[in-house]
Amino acid sequence: MTKEEILQVLREKNDYVSGEYLAESLGVTRTAIWKQIHTLIKEGYVIDSQQNKGYRLVGVPDRLYASEVKYGLQTKLLGKRVVHFNVTTSTNIVARQMAEEGVEEGTVIVAETQTRGKGRLGRKFITKGGGVWMSVILKPNIDPMHASSITLMAAVSVTKALRGMGLEAVIKWPNDVFVNGKKICGILTEMSAETDIVNFIILGIGVNVNNDIPLETATTMKAELGKEVSRVRFIQALLEELEEDYLTFKEKGFTPILWNWRRFSDTLGRPVEVSCQDEKIRGVAQDVDEDGSLIVKLTDGTVKKIVSGDCRHLKNIKEK
Amino acid sequence: MTKEEILQVLREKNDYVSGEYLAESLGVTRTAIWKQIHTLIKEGYVIDSQQNKGYRLVGVPDRLYASEVKYGLQTKLLGKRVVHFNVTTSTNIVARQMAEEGVEEGTVIVAETQTRGKGRLGRKFITKGGGVWMSVILKPNIDPMHASSITLMAAVSVTKALRGMGLEAVIKWPNDVFVNGKKICGILTEMSAETDIVNFIILGIGVNVNNDIPLETATTMKAELGKEVSRVRFIQALLEELEEDYLTFKEKGFTPILWNWRRFSDTLGRPVEVSCQDEKIRGVAQDVDEDGSLIVKLTDGTVKKIVSGDCRHLKNIKEK
Repeated sequence: MTKEEILQVLREKNDYVSGEYLAESLGVTRTAIWKQIHTLIKEGYVIDSQQNKGYRLVGVPDRLYASEVKYGLQTKLLGKRVVHFNVTTSTNIVARQMAEEGVEEGTVIVAETQTRGKGRLGRKFITKGGGVWMSVILKPNIDPMHASSITLMAAVSVTKALRGMGLEAVIKWPNDVFVNGKKICGILTEMSAETDIVNFIILGIGVNVNNDIPLETATTMKAELGKEVSRVRFIQALLEELEEDYLTFKEKGFTPILWNWRRFSDTLGRPVEVSCQDEKIRGVAQDVDEDGSLIVKLTDGTVKKIVSGDCRHLKNIKEK
Repeated sequence: MTKEEILQVLREKNDYVSGEYLAESLGVTRTAIWKQIHTLIKEGYVIDSQQNKGYRLVGVPDRLYASEVKYGLQTKLLGKRVVHFNVTTSTNIVARQMAEEGVEEGTVIVAETQTRGKGRLGRKFITKGGGVWMSVILKPNIDPMHASSITLMAAVSVTKALRGMGLEAVIKWPNDVFVNGKKICGILTEMSAETDIVNFIILGIGVNVNNDIPLETATTMKAELGKEVSRVRFIQALLEELEEDYLTFKEKGFTPILWNWRRFSDTLGRPVEVSCQDEKIRGVAQDVDEDGSLIVKLTDGTVKKIVSGDCRHLKNIKEK
């Protein structure tokens, strides 16, 4: 018997449930029930206890516990297993270790705070309490050359989840999600692969929800909506969008995903400056190809294909 | 003081060296020297010990100990650190763990035997005693899309090392090395990457040297040359070729490597059958492009680009 099972009974009944009933239906002693109720209360669940009536669930904590994330989640693959941390180094690090050990596809690692949250290219990524910091373990049967598709797909799924909450989210190439010109989500994909085949992909997604952000260039769902958001509801919506897009990707390939990417993109048609390893390329973003590369038309008319880099949107092509 | 330091003194002197001299020059007691000499003898070193003369190195064991591999090795990067196992699961597994922990580029893991030696796509790879089973940790500053270059490069380096020992080695696409129509080397590349950048590549190389092979489709250096080969000398030659090719790749890119690949290839110009995920493609192998993909001209004249698959050489296009 786990505390999750007790929670489930309390939720289903939505009324007082006697300790005796819980003990009997879960096949344990009343003392064991009492101990787990105590643990739940310590975790922040509000459980009213009355002498003759038993226990009743009155409130749930603002935590991304596995039991909360999974309760009512409409997915089959993603989130079948959820591992929660109050604090961890980084959910991507934990996910990678678990994936190396052979954990099943769809496992989700989520943390309230991270001590070593990181962004692309080893950059620091601020991940205080109140946000959604999670990693999803995927095992697509694809060539490592096509792994960037998963990153672009994630940007599409996040955008859809944010739009579902009433935010006008857009994508900046390759995979940043912006609202009102400010960054609201970062995605960091890591993979382990052989020459022919991907072993696993860790899809790390950080979304600013109710957390405070000290940067002018970033925003949060709370700031944009003017109120706190249920992180559990949001993470569920996000996992549902991700699963839908992932299944589409597996069945029909990248093309339908790419069409949504183009639809949500704020980069296409704009003057941009892309910083690659050694150079800065300026031009107008024309399209994204099947590899996820950005096609940029320079002022001299030549067309460049940019596999990776940092993209800055410009007001006009001559902006400093 | 390490046993490697004692070995080095014994090698340099190439004569009897007194325990007193060893103790003084290495700054330890004679008892400490005696203990390490004892360890070396247990490892298979033949050290003659004479009352008034001291110790003399008479023979070295047929083992790929770090001290042996590094003695006389003409490289700067590869093999600066060598980690040796009598038995391990697989050198790729160990190398990946070490790379995750941040070990430096060029570290080489080598094992006498592996219990879980594996080939491409999770296939079993027989790795008994007498072969060279090793993994090299590389950290090239490249996009993961270009990681297959490293695999093709390794096939070139192995071929050069084998030719240096007098064997007519050739490459079968993408990275098998054959002598007299039989496989002599397998290469398994694994990588850890983000969307933009490779974190590390594990280059796993298994070469049949003096080991017994129960397969008719495979051969060994010993079988082809009619005599045992010094595994230490071969691994040194291989590391030297790898380093040369790796530095060329980093400085000048993949093109010069690819020219050598083409030169050593036994696939180009031949009728081939390539098994991809769902289909078998038959045609004549025309070229390999900058991605390492095989370009095949089908009988109907169409040209196909094959990113990955199993390639079988045919005598003629209609072979069963």
